[in-house]
Amino acid sequence: MKFKTLSAALFTTAAVSVSGVSMAYDEIVSVRQEPVQPIQPAKVSDPQLVKLGAMLFFDPRLSKSGFISCNSCHNLSRGGSDNLKTSIGDKWQEGPINSPTVLNSSLNVAQFWDGRAADLKEQAGGPIANPGEMAFTHELAVEMLQSVPGYTVEFRKAFGTDKINIDMVTDAIAAFEETLVTPHSKFDKWLAGDDDALTPTELRGWDLFKTSGCVACHNGAALGGNSFQKMGLVEPYHTTAAAEGRSAVTGKDADRFNFKVPTLRNVELTYPYFHDGGADTLVEAVDIMGRLQLGKKFTPDENAAIVAFLKTLTGEQPRIIVPILPPSSDATPRPTPFAD
Amino acid sequence: MKFKTLSAALFTTAAVSVSGVSMAYDEIVSVRQEPVQPIQPAKVSDPQLVKLGAMLFFDPRLSKSGFISCNSCHNLSRGGSDNLKTSIGDKWQEGPINSPTVLNSSLNVAQFWDGRAADLKEQAGGPIANPGEMAFTHELAVEMLQSVPGYTVEFRKAFGTDKINIDMVTDAIAAFEETLVTPHSKFDKWLAGDDDALTPTELRGWDLFKTSGCVACHNGAALGGNSFQKMGLVEPYHTTAAAEGRSAVTGKDADRFNFKVPTLRNVELTYPYFHDGGADTLVEAVDIMGRLQLGKKFTPDENAAIVAFLKTLTGEQPRIIVPILPPSSDATPRPTPFAD
Repeated sequence: MKFKTLSAALFTTAAVSVSGVSMAYDEIVSVRQEPVQPIQPAKVSDPQLVKLGAMLFFDPRLSKSGFISCNSCHNLSRGGSDNLKTSIGDKWQEGPINSPTVLNSSLNVAQFWDGRAADLKEQAGGPIANPGEMAFTHELAVEMLQSVPGYTVEFRKAFGTDKINIDMVTDAIAAFEETLVTPHSKFDKWLAGDDDALTPTELRGWDLFKTSGCVACHNGAALGGNSFQKMGLVEPYHTTAAAEGRSAVTGKDADRFNFKVPTLRNVELTYPYFHDGGADTLVEAVDIMGRLQLGKKFTPDENAAIVAFLKTLTGEQPRIIVPILPPSSDATPRPTPFAD
Repeated sequence: MKFKTLSAALFTTAAVSVSGVSMAYDEIVSVRQEPVQPIQPAKVSDPQLVKLGAMLFFDPRLSKSGFISCNSCHNLSRGGSDNLKTSIGDKWQEGPINSPTVLNSSLNVAQFWDGRAADLKEQAGGPIANPGEMAFTHELAVEMLQSVPGYTVEFRKAFGTDKINIDMVTDAIAAFEETLVTPHSKFDKWLAGDDDALTPTELRGWDLFKTSGCVACHNGAALGGNSFQKMGLVEPYHTTAAAEGRSAVTGKDADRFNFKVPTLRNVELTYPYFHDGGADTLVEAVDIMGRLQLGKKFTPDENAAIVAFLKTLTGEQPRIIVPILPPSSDATPRPTPFAD
């Protein structure tokens, strides 16, 4: 199978007629023995599905109000997050939890902070039908899409049929989200062999990150996302947020306050931090994590070095062309932002 | 002065290091004697200013909540509008009026439905400080921007100084908005000499549009935007909307219910119609306009022909790369979506 790298794919899919360039997919190989691996460029095996997914990701018509899209809370201008403590839902409802970044989310062991969705496809259906988020239903979302001629054309191209169902919708969104990876960070350049990619302070931060135990949970290509861990392991975490994490899924008391370890990729962009957005800055987050999870009080100098390292995890952001959405037809049900 | 066309400019400005292509600016000339002229491609004389304006246009940090950007209500995925009857403001406030498209808005004689802003620069400052819209202040907006290192770099490049003020902010947004034009519609291809660009039905619609009197107000390159006219000239317009239009600016009773004539460019994309969003479809809008403004009841066949013509006014939509916004610093004040 031929793959295309991210930028080529997005130009191609967003403007098929403009560019059909196919680029070879080059794996980025680490030359170092480290518990973190480089982020790989996106593989796009189905450009038409990705193009459709991008349209759906940006379409507020998937919400009851016609005002909230996936991109509202997973804003691709802002590290795939909304940079709010907790998100704003339909009718300005205050969400219960911090919106995790969509960037590199395909690397997660499961989706949502409590892992209640197995994968991106399962996740994508959640917010659409959540009364506190997009407040729509899958049936109404499909009815809307089916009534838009420009969409039936795109679904036919992607699936060979224009009889739309919610599985097709979430397939497409997930396919787009899988392209939202951020390779070529400074840290990954260092992993790939560029000794000058990191400053001595950043390298010291990486060393502290490993020797202090951060890497025990934040490892793998995404530096996190691959396990559930207790928030407040050594000292309890104090928060007014009601979320109790993994126990909501497993029903086990032992899983209370177990949350999915968030990725640290692009963490400079995805403030505020923790499941409740309780830490505004990286300085604060590193300090709290050190004390509560590791029983370690970092000196200001150590904290600064770790923060400097964390900022080397910002990768190339996906280059997305703002999708032009097909207009509603006269038959399309209109959004009802102010109705009950 | 050398100009660049829109697509070249946006690639250039959104990714200066990737592409520095400069393309000649080609004026599109009409070969016909008609009361409508083709939309011209964007002229970008200051790519750095346009790039900065694009960032600001997409940045929700210009709102109190950190959730609403210019693009929220002037969505470039959706014809530069939000496709809602009236817009959603801070804390889900129901706006008093329909959000006009930002596309081709540089051609307007003045901005807002009542023309209270002379130009795009003056308009841009309005929603930021409007308590019912972005609910921020110019002072807080500038304070936010000044605290973001990535922004001070961009302002320095655009203005030669990184001491930001609100004039620079609105200058940049206006410069970006001036590039949001939509040339090369089917109708403009016909104006430029392509006899096959329009079908017989579309041509009949154009003829009806002229002979019925629509063109008396909807003329010029934008088919509107260049005068104020009374809504409900022959028959009164019934609405629950409180807006009384131009009289709010002039104080003259004679100007009550005088609104700026909206552009019909891209009207297929900018539903619902009228200052109160009272008409969901073009069929409805054409029918109401005919009766209330012209004292004319179009037959279903005439209505369909005019609607077919109106859909030929959809031009090439601006090709915008989603701007990557610079992260807030530790010193940046955080948004307060749920505080009073």
